[in-house]
Amino acid sequence: MSRKFIAIAALPLALAAGHAGASDVARRSGIVIGILSPGPLNAITDVPGVRVGHVTIERGKDIHTGVTAILPHGGNLFREKVPAGIVVANGFGKFAGSTQIEELGEVETPILLTNTLSVAEAMAASVEWTLAQPGNEDVRSVNAVVGETNDGMLNDIRGRHVQVADARRAIETAAAGAVAEGNVGAGTGTVAFGCKGGIGSASRRLPASLGGWTVGVLVQANYGGVLTIDGTAVGPALGRYDFQREIEERRADGSVIVVVATDAPLSDRNLRRLAARAFAGIARSGSSFSNGSGDYAVAFSTAASVRRKTGTAIPMVADLPNGAMSPAFQAAAEATEEAVLNAMLSARTTVGHRGTVEALPLDRVLPLLPKPRSR
Amino acid sequence: MSRKFIAIAALPLALAAGHAGASDVARRSGIVIGILSPGPLNAITDVPGVRVGHVTIERGKDIHTGVTAILPHGGNLFREKVPAGIVVANGFGKFAGSTQIEELGEVETPILLTNTLSVAEAMAASVEWTLAQPGNEDVRSVNAVVGETNDGMLNDIRGRHVQVADARRAIETAAAGAVAEGNVGAGTGTVAFGCKGGIGSASRRLPASLGGWTVGVLVQANYGGVLTIDGTAVGPALGRYDFQREIEERRADGSVIVVVATDAPLSDRNLRRLAARAFAGIARSGSSFSNGSGDYAVAFSTAASVRRKTGTAIPMVADLPNGAMSPAFQAAAEATEEAVLNAMLSARTTVGHRGTVEALPLDRVLPLLPKPRSR
Amino acid sequence: MSRKFIAIAALPLALAAGHAGASDVARRSGIVIGILSPGPLNAITDVPGVRVGHVTIERGKDIHTGVTAILPHGGNLFREKVPAGIVVANGFGKFAGSTQIEELGEVETPILLTNTLSVAEAMAASVEWTLAQPGNEDVRSVNAVVGETNDGMLNDIRGRHVQVADARRAIETAAAGAVAEGNVGAGTGTVAFGCKGGIGSASRRLPASLGGWTVGVLVQANYGGVLTIDGTAVGPALGRYDFQREIEERRADGSVIVVVATDAPLSDRNLRRLAARAFAGIARSGSSFSNGSGDYAVAFSTAASVRRKTGTAIPMVADLPNGAMSPAFQAAAEATEEAVLNAMLSARTTVGHRGTVEALPLDRVLPLLPKPRSR
Amino acid sequence: MSRKFIAIAALPLALAAGHAGASDVARRSGIVIGILSPGPLNAITDVPGVRVGHVTIERGKDIHTGVTAILPHGGNLFREKVPAGIVVANGFGKFAGSTQIEELGEVETPILLTNTLSVAEAMAASVEWTLAQPGNEDVRSVNAVVGETNDGMLNDIRGRHVQVADARRAIETAAAGAVAEGNVGAGTGTVAFGCKGGIGSASRRLPASLGGWTVGVLVQANYGGVLTIDGTAVGPALGRYDFQREIEERRADGSVIVVVATDAPLSDRNLRRLAARAFAGIARSGSSFSNGSGDYAVAFSTAASVRRKTGTAIPMVADLPNGAMSPAFQAAAEATEEAVLNAMLSARTTVGHRGTVEALPLDRVLPLLPKPRSR
Repeated sequence: MSRKFIAIAALPLALAAGHAGASDVARRSGIVIGILSPGPLNAITDVPGVRVGHVTIERGKDIHTGVTAILPHGGNLFREKVPAGIVVANGFGKFAGSTQIEELGEVETPILLTNTLSVAEAMAASVEWTLAQPGNEDVRSVNAVVGETNDGMLNDIRGRHVQVADARRAIETAAAGAVAEGNVGAGTGTVAFGCKGGIGSASRRLPASLGGWTVGVLVQANYGGVLTIDGTAVGPALGRYDFQREIEERRADGSVIVVVATDAPLSDRNLRRLAARAFAGIARSGSSFSNGSGDYAVAFSTAASVRRKTGTAIPMVADLPNGAMSPAFQAAAEATEEAVLNAMLSARTTVGHRGTVEALPLDRVLPLLPKPRSR
Repeated sequence: MSRKFIAIAALPLALAAGHAGASDVARRSGIVIGILSPGPLNAITDVPGVRVGHVTIERGKDIHTGVTAILPHGGNLFREKVPAGIVVANGFGKFAGSTQIEELGEVETPILLTNTLSVAEAMAASVEWTLAQPGNEDVRSVNAVVGETNDGMLNDIRGRHVQVADARRAIETAAAGAVAEGNVGAGTGTVAFGCKGGIGSASRRLPASLGGWTVGVLVQANYGGVLTIDGTAVGPALGRYDFQREIEERRADGSVIVVVATDAPLSDRNLRRLAARAFAGIARSGSSFSNGSGDYAVAFSTAASVRRKTGTAIPMVADLPNGAMSPAFQAAAEATEEAVLNAMLSARTTVGHRGTVEALPLDRVLPLLPKPRSR
Repeated sequence: MSRKFIAIAALPLALAAGHAGASDVARRSGIVIGILSPGPLNAITDVPGVRVGHVTIERGKDIHTGVTAILPHGGNLFREKVPAGIVVANGFGKFAGSTQIEELGEVETPILLTNTLSVAEAMAASVEWTLAQPGNEDVRSVNAVVGETNDGMLNDIRGRHVQVADARRAIETAAAGAVAEGNVGAGTGTVAFGCKGGIGSASRRLPASLGGWTVGVLVQANYGGVLTIDGTAVGPALGRYDFQREIEERRADGSVIVVVATDAPLSDRNLRRLAARAFAGIARSGSSFSNGSGDYAVAFSTAASVRRKTGTAIPMVADLPNGAMSPAFQAAAEATEEAVLNAMLSARTTVGHRGTVEALPLDRVLPLLPKPRSR
Repeated sequence: MSRKFIAIAALPLALAAGHAGASDVARRSGIVIGILSPGPLNAITDVPGVRVGHVTIERGKDIHTGVTAILPHGGNLFREKVPAGIVVANGFGKFAGSTQIEELGEVETPILLTNTLSVAEAMAASVEWTLAQPGNEDVRSVNAVVGETNDGMLNDIRGRHVQVADARRAIETAAAGAVAEGNVGAGTGTVAFGCKGGIGSASRRLPASLGGWTVGVLVQANYGGVLTIDGTAVGPALGRYDFQREIEERRADGSVIVVVATDAPLSDRNLRRLAARAFAGIARSGSSFSNGSGDYAVAFSTAASVRRKTGTAIPMVADLPNGAMSPAFQAAAEATEEAVLNAMLSARTTVGHRGTVEALPLDRVLPLLPKPRSR
């Protein structure tokens, strides 16, 4: 009997009824993470209003990079800011915009992801796009939010091939609906656990009795460790992990950026707490947050009742109490772990700048997992 | 073929040669966490100089509590402070001494663990004991460090049955060598994942090529989640987990304190980073860091080359570079995960204040794990 | 023309109309800090509902210490928690309860102040008192909040003369109305800038056009630096400051705890920001936050619209926007600076454990200030 | 008798012997901040090795902006990183690079200052310059450090007139020696306290008995409050401050970036503490850290004994103990307060994009200060 069957048997049906949506590569392979059910798309876009855009930049062997944009809603983000929180699990990274998120508890721009040496271009695009939005004619301060991971194995990162126009296009083409995963956008050139990484997404929808909220996650997976799939450490068997060599060669060991969206009406403080739980999912995937990994999570709420608009009156805002947070925490951890798997299982073998990185070989992985995996 | 065999086969022998020490209940059951090897005792006391003392307080059905003391070394702790770092994963707790650790990067007293409502008594003991040590006659400021978890299920916690003398005795009886686990000291009345929790310990010794350092961990396990043993989520099958009920009843959901010791010559900043990795182990054990859990980790270094003594000259201190930290991070995560298992597998079924909490039934657990478990 | 007259002339009358209340020793001496007006009592108790209690412990030459309790409101503090924020300017201190304030953004007990080595007794009192309140029969977790400074110059601090009953009495006798200052409660034995320190309080009431909120402050002043009164560095002229000697003798250099109350409906995040501004006032008083100083500020809101009660529905809470915070920030800085002066000017010369500490000699100070000081 | 004479008379000669260096506009006016003496240049460049470069961009009425670069030393900054700390007093800002400074405790690039909407261009320049340095051919990760303030009153900030080449030129022209102040570099278009702000610098040299270290500061002053010069609140009398109007119009209220350099061998933790003391100086200048102000300080050490180079052995590093920090703290506070004055007194009246901002009128200020000011 599979351990997942065990888990499901003991849970109410409402929790176990997994839905096969767009972002279901892991589930279609019989790998079911956690005890909560995903939303219809099993993607960050299950949170109403959230939009995702990718610009993928691939030219020849040497250039594999891109930009991914996550928009909290389709309105004027600067005029209708969303409460937000950020957590830095290991700050070997260049995340832009973190201190203003911490101070003011809000995001006022798209969230952009790109490569380590192209943060400037993504910032420029975010600033320019925001200045140009109708209604923003008098805006003179913009807190661009940009995360990054280092795709310097497959991509000629020193060439700095992301242009401002590329990042702007990622914003402009962002859309609701299914989220493309794997070698797309900011995941085009990433490597995870020695295999091809990429962009992944997943979601969880809480039962009505626990609030009925949706928690959606998108990851840019480019990190390392002992690859662990739903609890089984498969990395070494796949020849994708050699701790001693990794250390001795002092290889840059990648990073992960996690974006968490929810429609629960959370304060910025509880959004920060929610963001922190993403790293429970990252830990379960096999990371010990190595020195060179820049590991960041940012969470925001799309709830209308917490949206921050300019005005003179004192707003009344909904505030889900601390005591009601635990189900959302569980959801964030599960969705993050699954989003990483979706990223890796969607990614394709890539011949790049400094070598070839193979996709995670599902056919070799499945036999390593406890049987049966038939769902 | 077991997944652990898989993992081991791909690793150098130096990493895989597990040693059966005193704190080996999980390993004796065939459960081997991670890829690194434990030290001889598989306990925090594998770090030379570290001492542990327990005072267990059990009286009748209602009183099950205690104190555990961890001493970084056997000298005058106030006169020879150790660099230290602390991380709060979820601050629903009463940890004493955290801000001075953060500001000055050091610990100058024993680290005490007890129950939530007895932190004051442990602080008083730490202060009095420090004032009374030879050489401390002019000391007028003592930063007592006390962690706690809530044993109010099995223990009449409102009765506040820990006395100052109990805590002092824990300090005074602290010793090197094997560490008692399970229902002892501050773990006497704790509950973890719906089973009996307790004190647990484990260690990892890095291969010489990765520095040869030892990382030892001691946990006070009193938290919840979906109990996961080496990757397998066994909680639901054991009837020890019902997420919905847990939430609806808004039960106090426990906490975990992790103490990490190492002989690596680390700065306080890198000790803080080391402490953070303990939570990768906690996450893998099934926690999503629920709202009511007070989850803290404190790490210190016993290396003579970083010891802080009073003097007029500018000291030269060893400082392991950031780039050499990753193996220690992996060790902290692994040892923490294993220490939790050692706590639970050492704990005994306890009839207490508000009911009975059964020990984790190993005979029911082992069949749930992927076979074979024979090592 | 005095600089204060300068300031006032340029301001609207609503801002300049200072009111002589109970805590007006500085103002009665013609020293007017800042540009905003105090409330009727010029004390933290101008914030409706706030109560203050002192227990002063003086026995012979050697014992000069005590406890001060600040209660955010007169109801059940545990059942009706107040949002709160905390800032550590220099964490060489033993402040209890900080991590839970940070995590949950709330205070659920009285805020107690005492001496460095008596935090445990104050915690015990807070826990016992909370457990004993009607309606708290099932409470099993209490986050006691205790600040401290070191009165070891005038007080035999190693004797640990504060009893649990003393701290309980401070809570039980807390009352609205004028606040006793100087050598009372937790300020009984404190020293500030080489003069006698103590407890001080002050407040600011914002004009209706800026929200009309009250910000009240209470300080336990026990720190050092170059004593500066309304901008004039008087310390050296008074022989109360010798930087070189202070450093060479490595004297314990005291601490300051600031408690900030407001009736503005602030989120915990904006309360943390408000607390931070207290240190602008401390800086202006002449502190550079020396190494040995434990400098903490905690702020809470008494607004009914942000009070946190247990319940099942999602509360709607008032949330003063970030953009409306600046006047309250100015108020916190001013009130803190003035509270310190009120503490020092109310304090009396004290013959104590290790010597005599004289009160700030107002007659020698006033001539040092720019003239005229007649208001 | 002036208060400054008072202060000086009571101090050892070694502390009081002020030196008139290049950055002495305040001192030449008789305004002497604090009790410690400046270094020969009274500038950040008194710290040996530190270099400063300005690129000033002024075109017609509308464009007044620029870039300032501070280089910790003249070698390969990436290969010889300096330990560093950062503090955010109010995070309404876009400071780039903060999280990696916090995590790794080091700076590996020039520190650049520019306007709010040009951070991206400065980052790009920092990255490109670093990649291009000899010896950095294999660098694939660069943590650009960029601070900013908003010069949108005098500068057409939305036009984004800073080019990557401008920022690169600021780096390339950085030099030791006297530091240009006022309307230069990143201070070209800034406004402080309603007057023209700018770049300012100052330093303090500790007496040999206190370590003999130098602490140098450079500020980009663009913030507000009640302008206070050496303790005298002159803002209102100058018609440069109207609190109520400021709030009601919700004006962008500027920011301040402080860069602190020292040759003291400090750990990154103590550098963070040093950076925090800069804000004591900012508070004394009249700021209450208003909501819209992005207030950041970054400190680094140039000591060879703490320089971080790549290598395999475990380095031994000098580590000035916590107990020796207080004089440096005092120095950072004083130098920051004076650097702000130097910025304002060096600045020139500027006709800009949205109006004219006059320089601080020294002739009107001096009579407001307590007499005599003759030194």
